[in-house]
Amino acid sequence: MADWSAEQYLKFEDERTRPARDLLAQIPLKESRQVVDIGCGPGNSTELLAARWPQARIIGIDTSADMLRQARERLPDFTFIEANVAHWVPPAGTDVLFANAIFQWVPDHLAQLKRLVASLPDGGALAVQMPDNLDQPSHVLMREVAQLAPFREQLVHAAEARDVLPPPGVYYDELRPLCRTIDMWRTDYLHVLDDAATIVEWVKGTGLRPFLDPLDFPERKDFLEAYTARIAANYPPQADGKVLLRFPRFFLVATR
Amino acid sequence: MADWSAEQYLKFEDERTRPARDLLAQIPLKESRQVVDIGCGPGNSTELLAARWPQARIIGIDTSADMLRQARERLPDFTFIEANVAHWVPPAGTDVLFANAIFQWVPDHLAQLKRLVASLPDGGALAVQMPDNLDQPSHVLMREVAQLAPFREQLVHAAEARDVLPPPGVYYDELRPLCRTIDMWRTDYLHVLDDAATIVEWVKGTGLRPFLDPLDFPERKDFLEAYTARIAANYPPQADGKVLLRFPRFFLVATR
Repeated sequence: MADWSAEQYLKFEDERTRPARDLLAQIPLKESRQVVDIGCGPGNSTELLAARWPQARIIGIDTSADMLRQARERLPDFTFIEANVAHWVPPAGTDVLFANAIFQWVPDHLAQLKRLVASLPDGGALAVQMPDNLDQPSHVLMREVAQLAPFREQLVHAAEARDVLPPPGVYYDELRPLCRTIDMWRTDYLHVLDDAATIVEWVKGTGLRPFLDPLDFPERKDFLEAYTARIAANYPPQADGKVLLRFPRFFLVATR
Repeated sequence: MADWSAEQYLKFEDERTRPARDLLAQIPLKESRQVVDIGCGPGNSTELLAARWPQARIIGIDTSADMLRQARERLPDFTFIEANVAHWVPPAGTDVLFANAIFQWVPDHLAQLKRLVASLPDGGALAVQMPDNLDQPSHVLMREVAQLAPFREQLVHAAEARDVLPPPGVYYDELRPLCRTIDMWRTDYLHVLDDAATIVEWVKGTGLRPFLDPLDFPERKDFLEAYTARIAANYPPQADGKVLLRFPRFFLVATR
């Protein structure tokens, strides 16, 4: 994929930071020596971690140069490293690994979670949040449009960028032998957005990227038109004209 | 129904307090003059409210004498009143109405929520959490057992104690004309419990009550045996022998 756009991602900063806040609230550690924000993006989650553990050393890693540039501007006192979590080993002394909305993009993420949690000291925590929305109209419809004749050939692999998450019991059985406690939950946020076009703007920053990146103009424009029309039909306005975007996310806090 | 048992309810105090904590975290008011804990139960949620707004006057209301007795013992400095929310008017000066796991028992609860939110001053908040688990095996199976010949006649009205919740958009459309913001979400908690018998203990404190109260011994014992066997079949043990109880709950914070 092309590099991530921090600007597009931050259009919905409040809504996108809420899951990070909810995840953070369930990490039991009162004190931390060193926290790593895996997939730190533009630093909005990193800022929360620093506020929670003001004494800790804070490190952010991400694969996107644009995101890291924004994160460094926002938080000049912390360490930001360009790294892919799939090939990355937590530095010695790390007792909190925080991963908000990143592991849904990582191949074989369950094996990666096992490797990472095993690296933690006694009492350390791995905290993970992943969108679990592939069955929502917002995502079903992008796959549907990708099947249409003008796009089919170029988008044959677009839906492969993310796997469906296994059921919670699978995470439990795989991680439990390595952990003292495993706290899991799944939240459907109901975001109040202005209209169908705003839903499209939202997914343009994340889930729609593997579908738009392979296309050139005018196919990209045509794809967006076909997709927006379907979104409008599937997210009818409320009495006040707004739309409700249901966004399910899976959470896991594993404590060594 | 017979009076609630505070002892039975508090067997899972940590797990039952988590939704109250999650609800509280989303109320935007920094300061509050007067908070009412509607359906305060044994005072576990009331304690959270007092910690969040130490300057506020704290009032708890409940219909259960046993719950109120425990709440007064636990928190002797606060006001606890025996009252049914359906016929109750918030006292002047109230700016936070907090209702954790109570409105699922209140007939025509949406009309009640409208009445209550309309009573709040500008900036005041109504915060509501309701179990939304009638479609879960834990609850489907109690209705299934209630259909069996030995219980059918006595339990013909048991399932009527709670209504299925309407979709979020209905709450939004009804409350929006009265409110500046409406924040809604739905969380499935995945409680790690010892075994199937522990799931039965859990629901005995709440959802199973309308099914057990009308029965005498030995029907009550027979009902529990038939129900426990079905629960065991539907909640198979994880690799370590524990079971995962999925418990969906709907949350709403309406701000005037």
